[in-house]
Amino acid sequence: MKFYSEEITFKTKGNCDIVNITDKIETVRINSGFSNGLCSIFAVGSTTGITTLEYESGLLKDLPELLNKLIPKNQRYNHDDTWGDGNGFSHLRSALFKTNFSIPLINSQLVLGTWQQVVFIDFDNRPRNRRIIVQLIGE
Amino acid sequence: MKFYSEEITFKTKGNCDIVNITDKIETVRINSGFSNGLCSIFAVGSTTGITTLEYESGLLKDLPELLNKLIPKNQRYNHDDTWGDGNGFSHLRSALFKTNFSIPLINSQLVLGTWQQVVFIDFDNRPRNRRIIVQLIGE
Amino acid sequence: MKFYSEEITFKTKGNCDIVNITDKIETVRINSGFSNGLCSIFAVGSTTGITTLEYESGLLKDLPELLNKLIPKNQRYNHDDTWGDGNGFSHLRSALFKTNFSIPLINSQLVLGTWQQVVFIDFDNRPRNRRIIVQLIGE
Repeated sequence: MKFYSEEITFKTKGNCDIVNITDKIETVRINSGFSNGLCSIFAVGSTTGITTLEYESGLLKDLPELLNKLIPKNQRYNHDDTWGDGNGFSHLRSALFKTNFSIPLINSQLVLGTWQQVVFIDFDNRPRNRRIIVQLIGE
Repeated sequence: MKFYSEEITFKTKGNCDIVNITDKIETVRINSGFSNGLCSIFAVGSTTGITTLEYESGLLKDLPELLNKLIPKNQRYNHDDTWGDGNGFSHLRSALFKTNFSIPLINSQLVLGTWQQVVFIDFDNRPRNRRIIVQLIGE
Repeated sequence: MKFYSEEITFKTKGNCDIVNITDKIETVRINSGFSNGLCSIFAVGSTTGITTLEYESGLLKDLPELLNKLIPKNQRYNHDDTWGDGNGFSHLRSALFKTNFSIPLINSQLVLGTWQQVVFIDFDNRPRNRRIIVQLIGE
């Protein structure tokens, strides 16, 4: 059993920008040289999230629309009184989606469904420089 | 430290079918022979989810009712314009619940609360053949 | 690669009590002596949750308010007919937030954003004694 870790950085547009990070994770997997194990992904920051989604244009509209209904952007939150940066909704969305995810690695393949891509979501209300940590435990 | 992995397959009824997979996971744990470590579970597919729930008849009705309120089935999503399979709501529910989970293994016991069972939820709108990957990292 | 595990116990007030457990996790990390690896946290119990949140007074009000809107406390759930303990909403909130989380450990630092704290949420409707398991896999 060995351990391998890489940090990945990229820019986002914020405002529920959904970034397909599947290929970035696969590159780390190749760099690790591991064939079997667990791949764990972590997004740094309290207005981020990681999950899986079929990466197609319909759902890329549906998910932000759903979030605007469940945790509206245009609403005053107590957080906004503290900092005045108007991103209370971003923190709440991140707390709900959470910033970690993990995928099995079996026979040199990260196991995902055919329509299942790993996505990073930037819940913040402005463009950001983001970083994620991709770790593999395996052999 | 060693690594053990098994794939489990089963049929679901779809439509928010909630399957208690606790015993299936315990069987893999026994097969592994491990006493201490981490057990990681992954559901393959973009309309699935894994979480914990007290597996009793009341909550088995409450959770689908809640989801019908938060992410309604009878609503048109942009995803449905893409594929015409009418399961946009299924993808959104899966993105929110996420398809991975992990449990500690301590002294040959998977640590769960008394009323805490591990469940697979099929968010799709039709019966499906499903597979999950159960992995143990430990000794 | 080695494995280290500790159980932590504490009291909560229930009723969406949000407890900052970041320092407790850091203490376990120090006890482990590990510098690199993965830190996995599990909350025992079907009315608990673990996620990250900026731990400031505004969001500590916003998150309970959001949950009262999405999964209201003052509503009858089928679960309450089963047990009469009136905490159906607590179980549903826990199923949505889930009871596990993990963080990377890099160069003797648990990687978190500046405003990102790890929190335990007690969704139950009364004070509870709680326990979480903190596990490290690393070296």
